[in-house]
Amino acid sequence: MEAFSDGVFAVAVTLLVFDLKVPDHREGQLLSELARQWPAYAGFFASFLYTAVIWLNHHTAFTRIRHVDRGLHFANLTLLFTTALIPFPTAVLSHALIDGVNSADARTAVALYAGIAAAMCAAWLLLYTTVHRGRDRLVEADIDPGTFAADRWRSIIGIVGYLSAGVVGALVYPAIALAVFVCLPIFYAATSEGALHLFGNSRRGGSTQ
Amino acid sequence: MEAFSDGVFAVAVTLLVFDLKVPDHREGQLLSELARQWPAYAGFFASFLYTAVIWLNHHTAFTRIRHVDRGLHFANLTLLFTTALIPFPTAVLSHALIDGVNSADARTAVALYAGIAAAMCAAWLLLYTTVHRGRDRLVEADIDPGTFAADRWRSIIGIVGYLSAGVVGALVYPAIALAVFVCLPIFYAATSEGALHLFGNSRRGGSTQ
Amino acid sequence: MEAFSDGVFAVAVTLLVFDLKVPDHREGQLLSELARQWPAYAGFFASFLYTAVIWLNHHTAFTRIRHVDRGLHFANLTLLFTTALIPFPTAVLSHALIDGVNSADARTAVALYAGIAAAMCAAWLLLYTTVHRGRDRLVEADIDPGTFAADRWRSIIGIVGYLSAGVVGALVYPAIALAVFVCLPIFYAATSEGALHLFGNSRRGGSTQ
Amino acid sequence: MEAFSDGVFAVAVTLLVFDLKVPDHREGQLLSELARQWPAYAGFFASFLYTAVIWLNHHTAFTRIRHVDRGLHFANLTLLFTTALIPFPTAVLSHALIDGVNSADARTAVALYAGIAAAMCAAWLLLYTTVHRGRDRLVEADIDPGTFAADRWRSIIGIVGYLSAGVVGALVYPAIALAVFVCLPIFYAATSEGALHLFGNSRRGGSTQ
Repeated sequence: MEAFSDGVFAVAVTLLVFDLKVPDHREGQLLSELARQWPAYAGFFASFLYTAVIWLNHHTAFTRIRHVDRGLHFANLTLLFTTALIPFPTAVLSHALIDGVNSADARTAVALYAGIAAAMCAAWLLLYTTVHRGRDRLVEADIDPGTFAADRWRSIIGIVGYLSAGVVGALVYPAIALAVFVCLPIFYAATSEGALHLFGNSRRGGSTQ
Repeated sequence: MEAFSDGVFAVAVTLLVFDLKVPDHREGQLLSELARQWPAYAGFFASFLYTAVIWLNHHTAFTRIRHVDRGLHFANLTLLFTTALIPFPTAVLSHALIDGVNSADARTAVALYAGIAAAMCAAWLLLYTTVHRGRDRLVEADIDPGTFAADRWRSIIGIVGYLSAGVVGALVYPAIALAVFVCLPIFYAATSEGALHLFGNSRRGGSTQ
Repeated sequence: MEAFSDGVFAVAVTLLVFDLKVPDHREGQLLSELARQWPAYAGFFASFLYTAVIWLNHHTAFTRIRHVDRGLHFANLTLLFTTALIPFPTAVLSHALIDGVNSADARTAVALYAGIAAAMCAAWLLLYTTVHRGRDRLVEADIDPGTFAADRWRSIIGIVGYLSAGVVGALVYPAIALAVFVCLPIFYAATSEGALHLFGNSRRGGSTQ
Repeated sequence: MEAFSDGVFAVAVTLLVFDLKVPDHREGQLLSELARQWPAYAGFFASFLYTAVIWLNHHTAFTRIRHVDRGLHFANLTLLFTTALIPFPTAVLSHALIDGVNSADARTAVALYAGIAAAMCAAWLLLYTTVHRGRDRLVEADIDPGTFAADRWRSIIGIVGYLSAGVVGALVYPAIALAVFVCLPIFYAATSEGALHLFGNSRRGGSTQ
């Protein structure tokens, strides 16, 4: 199962480059046209970061799992569904920002991105809950039994964070949402070893290759 | 062989996002234009579900197979051929539905989708039959000898179901075919452990990672 | 190394679907426009078959190889280079055939396809020669020492066959070249166990998974 | 981690073919239009070579690494980020060269390519430094302790080489930069076994499969 999941992550992260297009330009105007599409570069960076961090969390989780049952297969496919979707709201957001950070279209795009990112956090919550409930069968013996219960809090923070960002971005000011879109992946990167490790428990720190 | 097959499934499932395009729109009209292309979202969802379920069935089958001979290689490549094709009828169907669920073009698109989906079921029938005939050499020792014979019935239900949906959709009412296109993948997901397991035989339930 | 190669084959074979586009059409004309682009379907089928057969030959060769040195890495990358290129001449050929099987553009397209397919056969010749020369270090102990020497003849048949098809197709009649483009992959599929096996030697028949 | 990295390399290298487009042409003009887009073929070749050589170096490095910690994960993701980006400056450069090797746009494109290639060399420097600092935990026991320290020099040559090429190409003559863009990947291919091997140390020559 990890081969298939790793394949989806690898393709999704590499396909993001298709949002970077050679701009139409009159002769000699290439530099200024390249500069004008800066939101596409920001979108590429943010979505690469987000997808790579998701892979890292996925990789960490599955070094702790020893068995995959039906329920976990479906939770994982739900997560891959939202991952495969990410390039779409990224492209919508990049296009909208080129026309202005505070336009009506930017508000629409920010709400779309927030909704799909929150759905991905919900998929993580489903996955962590599935593993936690079946931890006697599914989890490696040397893992702290509270590991996946604690990780559910990380998902809940994401759901609340993205939904709040979507509402504030759509109704008040889109740039606030953009700041959240950059900060939450950094939060997930910083906590990729799992929530338990934040509180000094590092019985099993690094992942082996 | 599983690495190559998993790669094809992972790429096929991730490429589906290319059918989701940023819609052309006048300033301020992004929201309504995004809403107007709902058939593309339905198509993405249905084809992701279908391809993911095919992968799950493929994964289950190959945990029970211990040897791959020439005949099984060709049956598997036939299956991958139809899988790699899926994004095309999905795109045709999405485009046709935007212009109306009951148009002449929707009837054409429904028939194309049904034909290719039936061809995939025929590829499964070939694969299950190939494994069943060579079960002494090809199948793991602890697997019930009737496993792959029983699974052939699942393929036959798909061939008959998709062809019927295609005929009814093209000649009577396309929406009936769309309902079948959603239900059959759910049937394959529900029976992904194999037909034998439906009748209480679960000697080997979950798949190991 | 096989993971990377399998990845390239899997992506190349799945990307071919991008040559199948939803045709521009007036309302109600979808069926006839779909029919008109039959050369694209033929191109998809031929290139899928060719790439899948290349993968099968690659897989068979590497079940017999136990060590990869610098020279073999470069021979393999040359083969992957020509494999990754295949979607381009396929698209050129499909487009040219839509405008007529005997046009000046069809002659150009046929010559391009033949040249790249011959280059791929030359990459196979390099790979088989590299393995044959270093067979004491590179090949599994239980493999007949003449295996890779015999396979070189299969590559030479391809080089001569594709170059002849290109010359005849460009100067005399393109359809003759198209027939060769379908027949040579079938030849490679039929001989994928290696040239030695054609003459009754099947000490090591099927490949294990 | 290697499965994910190999996947990104395999997808990146195969996606490059999308820069090769069937040219718009009037009937009978296919040959001359194909010839006119030679910079796209040169770009495909150079970027395929570069990405394949990066994969080869990555593969060599990770046969010597036995453990991956957080820091190495992030260094590796930085490298994958620059790898996934390569198709973009390649496309910009190909387009610019079609309009003339010495135009203002060619200078812009050459500077962009040089900047991203230098950033990739900086990612290699980060990776080699991370491994060298943690060599007691991260590196296989039978590897010379100076291996990764020596490899840092190969990265520094790349950073200086690409940045110089970018400055000279943007301010003096773009063709000089193009020559550097071809020569540096050849340098990395020739030294892919590691800098230490250049000085006669080949205690561990070929990589096993």
